[in-house]
Amino acid sequence: MSAKLKSAVLGASGYSGLELTRILERHPRLEKPALLRREGGSDGAADLAELFPELSGNGGYPLRPLSWPELKRQGVELLFLATPHEASRSLVPEAIAQGLRVIDLSGAWRLKQAQHRAIYSFQDADAVTAAELTAKAVYGLPELNGDRIAAAQLVANPGCYATSVILALAPLLQAGLVDRECGIISDSKSGASGAGKAPTSRTHFVAVADNLSAYSVFNHRHLGEMVEQLGLGDAELIFTPHLLPILRGILSTIYVRLNRAMQPPEVESCLRDFYSGKHWVRVFATPKLPQVQFSLHTNYCDLGFCLAEDGQRLVLVSCVDNLLKGAAGQAVQNMNLMYRWEEREGLQ
Amino acid sequence: MSAKLKSAVLGASGYSGLELTRILERHPRLEKPALLRREGGSDGAADLAELFPELSGNGGYPLRPLSWPELKRQGVELLFLATPHEASRSLVPEAIAQGLRVIDLSGAWRLKQAQHRAIYSFQDADAVTAAELTAKAVYGLPELNGDRIAAAQLVANPGCYATSVILALAPLLQAGLVDRECGIISDSKSGASGAGKAPTSRTHFVAVADNLSAYSVFNHRHLGEMVEQLGLGDAELIFTPHLLPILRGILSTIYVRLNRAMQPPEVESCLRDFYSGKHWVRVFATPKLPQVQFSLHTNYCDLGFCLAEDGQRLVLVSCVDNLLKGAAGQAVQNMNLMYRWEEREGLQ
Amino acid sequence: MSAKLKSAVLGASGYSGLELTRILERHPRLEKPALLRREGGSDGAADLAELFPELSGNGGYPLRPLSWPELKRQGVELLFLATPHEASRSLVPEAIAQGLRVIDLSGAWRLKQAQHRAIYSFQDADAVTAAELTAKAVYGLPELNGDRIAAAQLVANPGCYATSVILALAPLLQAGLVDRECGIISDSKSGASGAGKAPTSRTHFVAVADNLSAYSVFNHRHLGEMVEQLGLGDAELIFTPHLLPILRGILSTIYVRLNRAMQPPEVESCLRDFYSGKHWVRVFATPKLPQVQFSLHTNYCDLGFCLAEDGQRLVLVSCVDNLLKGAAGQAVQNMNLMYRWEEREGLQ
Amino acid sequence: MSAKLKSAVLGASGYSGLELTRILERHPRLEKPALLRREGGSDGAADLAELFPELSGNGGYPLRPLSWPELKRQGVELLFLATPHEASRSLVPEAIAQGLRVIDLSGAWRLKQAQHRAIYSFQDADAVTAAELTAKAVYGLPELNGDRIAAAQLVANPGCYATSVILALAPLLQAGLVDRECGIISDSKSGASGAGKAPTSRTHFVAVADNLSAYSVFNHRHLGEMVEQLGLGDAELIFTPHLLPILRGILSTIYVRLNRAMQPPEVESCLRDFYSGKHWVRVFATPKLPQVQFSLHTNYCDLGFCLAEDGQRLVLVSCVDNLLKGAAGQAVQNMNLMYRWEEREGLQ
Repeated sequence: MSAKLKSAVLGASGYSGLELTRILERHPRLEKPALLRREGGSDGAADLAELFPELSGNGGYPLRPLSWPELKRQGVELLFLATPHEASRSLVPEAIAQGLRVIDLSGAWRLKQAQHRAIYSFQDADAVTAAELTAKAVYGLPELNGDRIAAAQLVANPGCYATSVILALAPLLQAGLVDRECGIISDSKSGASGAGKAPTSRTHFVAVADNLSAYSVFNHRHLGEMVEQLGLGDAELIFTPHLLPILRGILSTIYVRLNRAMQPPEVESCLRDFYSGKHWVRVFATPKLPQVQFSLHTNYCDLGFCLAEDGQRLVLVSCVDNLLKGAAGQAVQNMNLMYRWEEREGLQ
Repeated sequence: MSAKLKSAVLGASGYSGLELTRILERHPRLEKPALLRREGGSDGAADLAELFPELSGNGGYPLRPLSWPELKRQGVELLFLATPHEASRSLVPEAIAQGLRVIDLSGAWRLKQAQHRAIYSFQDADAVTAAELTAKAVYGLPELNGDRIAAAQLVANPGCYATSVILALAPLLQAGLVDRECGIISDSKSGASGAGKAPTSRTHFVAVADNLSAYSVFNHRHLGEMVEQLGLGDAELIFTPHLLPILRGILSTIYVRLNRAMQPPEVESCLRDFYSGKHWVRVFATPKLPQVQFSLHTNYCDLGFCLAEDGQRLVLVSCVDNLLKGAAGQAVQNMNLMYRWEEREGLQ
Repeated sequence: MSAKLKSAVLGASGYSGLELTRILERHPRLEKPALLRREGGSDGAADLAELFPELSGNGGYPLRPLSWPELKRQGVELLFLATPHEASRSLVPEAIAQGLRVIDLSGAWRLKQAQHRAIYSFQDADAVTAAELTAKAVYGLPELNGDRIAAAQLVANPGCYATSVILALAPLLQAGLVDRECGIISDSKSGASGAGKAPTSRTHFVAVADNLSAYSVFNHRHLGEMVEQLGLGDAELIFTPHLLPILRGILSTIYVRLNRAMQPPEVESCLRDFYSGKHWVRVFATPKLPQVQFSLHTNYCDLGFCLAEDGQRLVLVSCVDNLLKGAAGQAVQNMNLMYRWEEREGLQ
Repeated sequence: MSAKLKSAVLGASGYSGLELTRILERHPRLEKPALLRREGGSDGAADLAELFPELSGNGGYPLRPLSWPELKRQGVELLFLATPHEASRSLVPEAIAQGLRVIDLSGAWRLKQAQHRAIYSFQDADAVTAAELTAKAVYGLPELNGDRIAAAQLVANPGCYATSVILALAPLLQAGLVDRECGIISDSKSGASGAGKAPTSRTHFVAVADNLSAYSVFNHRHLGEMVEQLGLGDAELIFTPHLLPILRGILSTIYVRLNRAMQPPEVESCLRDFYSGKHWVRVFATPKLPQVQFSLHTNYCDLGFCLAEDGQRLVLVSCVDNLLKGAAGQAVQNMNLMYRWEEREGLQ
C-alpha cells in the first residue's frame, strides 16, 4: 500500500464534523486528519475531546488554527470543510489556489443556477473567481456523478434532504417514467441534529420533544439542489421538511404519478438496475418499506415503494442518516472516488 | 338546571376510553358515568384505577359487567362504546333496540359504501338490522354534520386521522376550489397511542423510539371515511400514515392543487368562513403553521397553510390530539350536540 | 359567592408562568388574571398567545407593563411572581409595601439561613427590608405549613425538587423514625422543562434526548430548602439531580435507614396518617410505586416505598409534575389556603 | 496471521445477539460466525436480515438449526450464547462436553452462591454436572478477572447493570477505602433495550415514553452478581434499577461513604491506578461526570465522581452501553482475552 493520504478537517466541532473526524481517523488509507479551527472558532477549545467527551481515551484531537503554509508544510492534500456556508464560500478560493482538493459539506458551492443561489445571499470578495469555482465544483452525489467526482478538485457535498430525495427520484426521472404535469411532492422529516448545534428556541428540548412541525414550506435551501440535479422546473417539485423529535435520520415520503400504468416488479427493476453495483443504496422489495432506524449509523440510502392498484400513483420512501449518507459518510464516499479507492473503504 | 344525564362507557380500559372517562366525570351536565366491561374484558380488573394508577385519589372507578336490564334500571340513556370494531358491530343492534342513544368510537358504523366496509370484514349476525343501522348511523364530525348528529340515535365517531384530513379539506372542496385531476395527498403522522394498547413488536418502545415509519400505504381503514365524507373518488386521495415516536398527536400535511390562482387571504377566508362559529377549529394566519404540541390535551383541530407563489400549489397542515378531537373529545362534543348543550361544555 | 379575586401574574412567558396562567383563568374564584411584563421582558410580545400559539382561540392574553398605580387602580390584591430570583428579590419589597399579597415561585425568599442563601448571591438594595421580608416569608408547602400560609402576606413557593423530597421525608423524620447517622440520599430525576426556557447547549434537543446526566452534585440550590424544612444538618442529606429526556415530571428515589426494624404496614401508616385529609398527596400501597406518568398534568405528589427484609433499609419514591405540584399548581394551592378556599379548587 | 477462528452464535435474534453478530463479522481474527437457532426459535426466519432489515446489503445471515455434529464438522471452537438463562443452563453442559469454549451472555452461570441462584429457579437435568460447571465458570469481567478468563472454557458474561456497578466500586473496595457500615447504594437507570425484545405492557412505547419508573427494588437478579464479585454482604448494597425512556445506555449513580476523609485527587488516583492499562474503562477528571451519550455505541465503561467537602461522602457515576460493555462488546472483549488477542481488537 502506498503512503497514507494527509487530510485536514475545518469545522470538526459541529455534528457533521465530529462524525467526519471519527470516520477519517479509522480510514485505512489516511493518516489521522489534522483538525483545524477558524479564528475564534470551536469555542476556543484546544482539543476536540473538550467539546465531545465521548472522544476521550483514544489519544488527543488537537485543534490548530488554520494556516495555509502549515498545511503545505505538513503535506496535506485534501481539505474537508464542515463549516457554515459563508465560511466555505470565503475560504475555498484560497484553498483551491493553494492546490488543495476540497470536499465542502456546506451549501456554498452546490448550486449552478443564480436564482437558486439567491437564497444564500453570498457576499463574494472576488466575483470572477467565485463564478469560476461555481462552474467547476462537482455536486458530490456519488451514485449520479461518480466520474466527475473522481476528477474534481472541488466537491460540493450534497444536502442531507437533497440526498434522500434525489436518490429516490433519479431512476424514474432518467427513465422518463414520471408524469411531471401533476408535479412531484417530497414530504420529508428530519431528526434535530439536522438543525445544527446552535442552541435556539427552535432546538430547545421542550420545543422538539413530543412534537412535529413543518417549516420552510416552498422555500427550503435544499430545494434548488433537488431540481437542478433532477432536471426539474422549480414548480415541478414541492418539498416540505418537518422537524422530528429524534436525534438523527431522515425519511422522505415522495409522491409521483407515473406516465403509464406499471407493475410493481417493473418499478423495482427500474430502481435496482439504476443502483446496480452501487453499494450504498439499498432497494427494498415492495411492500417492505425502509424505516429511519434501518439506516441509522450507516452510510446507506434505503429506498422502497408502494404502487397503487391503478399502477400509476406511486409512493416512494427514502431514508438516510443525515449525518452520514446525508453529510460525513457521503463526504468520505466522495473521497474514496477522488482517490480511486473502493467506495466502501472506511465506511463499514 | 335539569337532572343530570346518566351515561355509561364500555371499553374504558383503552387509551380513548380512559380519556373519555376523565372528561365525562367532570362534565357538568352528567352524573359520573357507569363503567362497563365485557365478559373477560379489562384484564379482570374490578376498578379502572387498578389499570391506571393515575386515577387513584378521586374515589373509585368500579368496572361492572355489561347488563342491559341493569342499564335500564339505572336510567342510563347514553352509551359510549370505546370497544374494538367487532365488538361495536355486534353490540350496537341490541343497544339501539334497548332504546339507548349510542356514540361509538370504533370504525364499526362509519362507512356507508360496501366497498369501503370490506376492509373490516364484518360478520353481522343479522344482516338486515346491520344494514338499517348502517344507513341510520350519523358520521359524528360536528363541524360538518351538526344537525344530523343532534337528531341521531347512533353516532359513529370519526377516526383520528380522518378528523384531521376531512376538516382540512372540506372548506376548499365544498367551495369547489380544488383541481381534483391531480389528486389530493395527505401525508399524516401519528403518535403511538393511535396504534392501540396491545403490546406488539410494532409498539415496543425499541421499535418506535428514534424511528419513523410509513405503513398501510393505499390501504388504511380511515381512507374510506375520508373519501365518503369529502365526496371524493377512491383514486382522488392518497393517504399515507406514519408512526411517530411520540405518545399522542397527529399532524397531517396535505397537498392540494387549486383550480385557479388565489391569494393567501382568499384561502384563509375560505377556511375561516367555513369554521365561523365553530369553537373547536382554529385557523392559523399564514405563514404560521400548527404544530403537534399546540393542540395536545385539547379538543382543537388546528389548521394552517402555505400557498406557493403560483397561487395554486397549496400545502395545508392539520393537527389534532388523536385521543381528544380524534376520539374522546369529539365524542363528548357529539354528546353536547345531541343534548343541545353548548359545544364547549365539559371540554375546557 | 362573593366578588371574584383580582390577581396578576408577572412572568407568564416562562413554562411555570404559562401553566399558572392557564390554571388561574379557569379558577372559579378569580377574575381572569392581569398578565404583566417587566421592562424589556416577554420578548416584546403584546399578547401571550404570540409566544404560545396553543393559547389562541380563547380570547386574548394581553401583556401589560408592570405598574404599581395601575395594579392599585384595578383592585389587584394578589400578585404571582414567576420571575427569575433576582427579579423577585428586587420587586417583592415594593409589592409588599403596596399592600399586595405575593406568591413568589422563584428561590428569592425560600431560605432562612444565610449560609444557604449564599448560593444565590443576592444583591439587596435595602438589606434591612430584605432581612425583614426573609423572616416574614412563609415557605409555601401546604401540607406542612398550612396555617402559616393562610396568614401570610409573602409566600415563597417551594422548588420542584424540594417539593418531591420534603413531602417524602417529612412524615418519617417528624415521627423520629430515621437513623440520621448514615445520612439520607435523594437521587432525583427531572424533565427538561425544569431547566428553564433559555436555549443553551445544555437544553439543546441533541444534548438531552437519548441521554441522562447528573449535575450540581452536592451544590444544587434546592438542597438548602430541603434541609431547612426538614430540620436536617447540611451533611445529613445528599441530593443528586439528573436531567431526564422527557418534557416534565420529577421522580425522586430516596434512601433512608430506619432507626428500628419496621413492617411495611407501619411505614405505610406513617405516611398515610401524616397526609390524612391532604388531597394532593397520594400514598401508594407497597410494593406499588409511583411513576412519572401517573402525576403528570396533575397537582398530586405521589409517594410509594419498598422496605428491605431487614425492616430498616427503606427506599421511598416520590413523583410530582415539576410545573404543577412543583410550581404553578402548588402556587394555586397556596392561594386557596390564603383565601380559605377548598384546596382542590381550580386544580382538577 | 494464523487461520481465523471459527465461532457460532446462538440467539442472534435478540438485541444483544444482533450487536454481537455485527461485531463478530467485522472482527479481523474471525471468520464470519455461524448463526444458529433453537428449535422453533427466531420466529422461524431463515435469515437474520428478515428480522432486522438494517442488515440487508451485506450478504446473507443464514440462521441454521443448532446441531452439535455440524458444529464439529465445521470446526467451530467457540460458541456464544445470547439465549435466555433457562436455555443457556440446559445447553452449556453439552457444549462443554463437546469440547467447545463457551461465552454465555445470560445469567445462567454467573452466580457462585446458592442463595443468589435461587432467584432464577434453575431446573438442572444433571445436578452434578451443573454444580461442576457452576464452579468452573469464570465471571467474565475482563478488568477484574483477566487471567482466569484467558484460561476459561466457560465464561459467564456479566449483567449490564452489574458491569456498571462493579467497575465503579471495585477500586475503592479493594483499596479498603469504603465505610461499609452505612451500606452502599446504586441508583441505576437503563434504556428499554435492557428489558428485552418481548412485547409486553411494560415495554409498550406508551408505557415507557415520557416516563421513568423504579422496579425490582431489593430483588433484581443482578444484585447477587454485584455482591459476589465485590465481596459484599447481601445487606451492604442497595440496588435500585429504573427504566429510562431511551433505547440504550445505563447510568448508575453510586453512593459510598469513605472510611477516612480524602481529597479528590486521591480518589481519582485510586480509580486511575486500578484501571491503568485497561483500555475499556475511562476515568473522568472530577467534577466532570460521564453521561449516557458519551459511551453509547462504544465498549467503554465511563467513571466519574464528586466528593463532598467533608471528604467522605462520595458520589460515583458509571455509564455503559448496556448492549456493548454491558453485553455483546464485553463478550468480544472476553474472547480477545481467551485467545490472547489485544483487548481492543474488533471493538473500535
